[in-house]
Amino acid sequence: MSRTAVIGAGPCGLAQLHAFEQARLDGVDVGEVVCFEKQSDWGGLWNYTWRTGLDSHGDPVHGSMYRYLWSNGPKECLEFSDYPFDEHFGGPIPSFPPREVLYDYIVGRAKKSNVRQFIEFDTAVRQVSFDDATQTFTLAIESWTSGESSFRTETFDYVIVATGHFSVPNVPEYPGFESFPGRILHSHDFRDAVEFAGRDLLILGSSYSAEDIALQSLKYGAASVTIAYRNAPMGFGWPDGIAEVPALQHLDGRTAHFADGSVRDVDAIILCTGYQHHFPFIDPALRLTTTNNLYPGGLYKGVVWTANPKLMYLGMQDQYYTFSMFDAQAFVARDVVLGRLPLPGNDTMAADVAAWLGRYAEVASVMEQIDFQTDYVRDLMTLTDYPAFDLDMVRQHFVTWEHDKDDSITGYRDKSFASPCTGTVGPAPHTTWWDELDDSLARFLKR
Amino acid sequence: MSRTAVIGAGPCGLAQLHAFEQARLDGVDVGEVVCFEKQSDWGGLWNYTWRTGLDSHGDPVHGSMYRYLWSNGPKECLEFSDYPFDEHFGGPIPSFPPREVLYDYIVGRAKKSNVRQFIEFDTAVRQVSFDDATQTFTLAIESWTSGESSFRTETFDYVIVATGHFSVPNVPEYPGFESFPGRILHSHDFRDAVEFAGRDLLILGSSYSAEDIALQSLKYGAASVTIAYRNAPMGFGWPDGIAEVPALQHLDGRTAHFADGSVRDVDAIILCTGYQHHFPFIDPALRLTTTNNLYPGGLYKGVVWTANPKLMYLGMQDQYYTFSMFDAQAFVARDVVLGRLPLPGNDTMAADVAAWLGRYAEVASVMEQIDFQTDYVRDLMTLTDYPAFDLDMVRQHFVTWEHDKDDSITGYRDKSFASPCTGTVGPAPHTTWWDELDDSLARFLKR
Repeated sequence: MSRTAVIGAGPCGLAQLHAFEQARLDGVDVGEVVCFEKQSDWGGLWNYTWRTGLDSHGDPVHGSMYRYLWSNGPKECLEFSDYPFDEHFGGPIPSFPPREVLYDYIVGRAKKSNVRQFIEFDTAVRQVSFDDATQTFTLAIESWTSGESSFRTETFDYVIVATGHFSVPNVPEYPGFESFPGRILHSHDFRDAVEFAGRDLLILGSSYSAEDIALQSLKYGAASVTIAYRNAPMGFGWPDGIAEVPALQHLDGRTAHFADGSVRDVDAIILCTGYQHHFPFIDPALRLTTTNNLYPGGLYKGVVWTANPKLMYLGMQDQYYTFSMFDAQAFVARDVVLGRLPLPGNDTMAADVAAWLGRYAEVASVMEQIDFQTDYVRDLMTLTDYPAFDLDMVRQHFVTWEHDKDDSITGYRDKSFASPCTGTVGPAPHTTWWDELDDSLARFLKR
Repeated sequence: MSRTAVIGAGPCGLAQLHAFEQARLDGVDVGEVVCFEKQSDWGGLWNYTWRTGLDSHGDPVHGSMYRYLWSNGPKECLEFSDYPFDEHFGGPIPSFPPREVLYDYIVGRAKKSNVRQFIEFDTAVRQVSFDDATQTFTLAIESWTSGESSFRTETFDYVIVATGHFSVPNVPEYPGFESFPGRILHSHDFRDAVEFAGRDLLILGSSYSAEDIALQSLKYGAASVTIAYRNAPMGFGWPDGIAEVPALQHLDGRTAHFADGSVRDVDAIILCTGYQHHFPFIDPALRLTTTNNLYPGGLYKGVVWTANPKLMYLGMQDQYYTFSMFDAQAFVARDVVLGRLPLPGNDTMAADVAAWLGRYAEVASVMEQIDFQTDYVRDLMTLTDYPAFDLDMVRQHFVTWEHDKDDSITGYRDKSFASPCTGTVGPAPHTTWWDELDDSLARFLKR
């Protein structure tokens, strides 16, 4: 009987446990599957924590989630094809739910497939190494399940890394940071926009975090938000109170100086400068090293570590597709473990990766990125029995969504989309996003 | 030739390098001494960083230092007996200097003894293990000296742990934290009191951090500071704007409820709830596990790991004495390595530890704590050639200082003390601490 370790019980890890369980329900011997989760509960980033910095065990806090986060893409683009939103909520709900609603949905499927029994909570994997002689992995494990810290090692035939890549911030330094009279934080440590009510904020970045935290902060009372970009502005039609300026040069006290010569006095600085793929617990020889992009090298089908195919990584791509892509990947990883998906030789795997990387090098626009990842998911779907959904519809949703954001950055979350699984069209929300301050599930689902 | 690893280049690590260098200058073969420092510069906590949470490598930020920190004890109580303040500053300076002045002093001695050559910066020790067969330690080391991360292992005969114990916060949770609309931080992440100007602060704790951060915050403009204690109030004569209340029970939105039934609306919460002794890089069998107290168990003379005397820990005690105690410990550690200080058998070491613990169990007051640690340092001083200083004077300084704080919590830093090394009495500061907002070295030293 094989032993498989899954590291992390967030969306990827839960997708993996669910995938194994589907096979087991079909009568397949899936061996022993053990999932290690260092947090006390499941859901990964979607398991909100008020903590920042280090957790109660002195470990880096995994969470980057903040209060008042609404999905920034249509929920129909991330729907589980074997567990549609209609099934979970008993009917249609609007297309852009807040965090608690998506958490409820992720956890709902995990409860239905009864996978909690496979998870060891409060348990961190400290080291993963591979023994060539025995062809097994040794995991050094620290656990606090008894209240106190305890250590042990276990051996596994397969290891599936599902620890995400939006937990370890990339934190640049600018001249004057050391004497700035106010808070400087990375978006990883952003928790509650109310903290910045009445304050003048400076945000560095030009991707999703910068966009969303700027809007959140203004919505919850910031006096002004200045967004500094390095290469190009996001260029949305910002509401009054948000402005984009060229790159920050330096700070002099609380005065920020920008590349166009303009200056601005600010009270706090939020670095929306992205995340690192960071796996300090994996032996360097087995460790994925990549920037955040749509096709990290070294992973066959974006999942299998070609240098040692008993090691797999889930969800390491930059993402348009999320939960459904994780599912498609998890079914691939499962079928590799089960021997249902025979892997070609190393040269063939490397050639496949090279072909994808070659195509990726040609991608020049957001629309081409959407097409690229759509084709990647389409390829994954040919490999397993993960239930089909209308991929072309999802692709079109992403295109429409990008246009909606250009039309109205404060209004795009009021739009409705059709489900690629059931066809159900999400109803309009009872309150427009810009006017809705209550992000609770109860409020969102109220008719 | 023996090889000795020193982990950390803060006050303890620098004291250790200095101690070895003093012997080398006397013509002694000290073997090879290598110090590993994960930060890019020396000084440990005294090397201020604006960063919080995780550093540029994704590692926990070591620093707990904040802007506008003035020494909270007389500098005469921490003076290096072989490098007095008079020597460094060329004359007398006031007794309570701000951070930059103490940093300059620490680094000044390290420069004089030319120990920077022994330090590998940007280099973290990931694992320390001991091989019974070879009687050596293996250190797994990660270094970014080339810009990229690289890994190697090295073996050493001795390991001296000097990584401090004020870096990994102890962070309790209270009901309502998850929905508190504002910032919640541990004092480890406190950097600049100006952030809280105009805000109503809640501070949890009743030790040095709570006391100092409450005062700092009010001094730099906080609207009010409420300090909640669990066992007993600090009871100082607080200035208007600071009040102590019994333990926090829960939060309801921004309303804090206390054990005496009182309530208070607050904008931010600072947890001054202490630190953990945390050594995840040391094999569990070699790892010191202790609360923060004046005599951690398992350390002969408070330094030597009795279970394996080739491993030593510096500065792991709770502290009245600081830099001078670290020096006295570092000379002991050095002389163990050099074979000058023969260690008794394990039973004798254990009996010595037990005798100190027995005495410590009887300590019932702050004054007895001061006497206890004075006697501990006095014992250390008998073991090596660390230059003598007037320990009885330092003891009396601590007693006077405690009374000064009771007399005026905002005024005690304006007092002057005599040096136990030179007899020099610090002049009065040109500006009283409560009115001085500029914490720079240049300002402090201005005549």
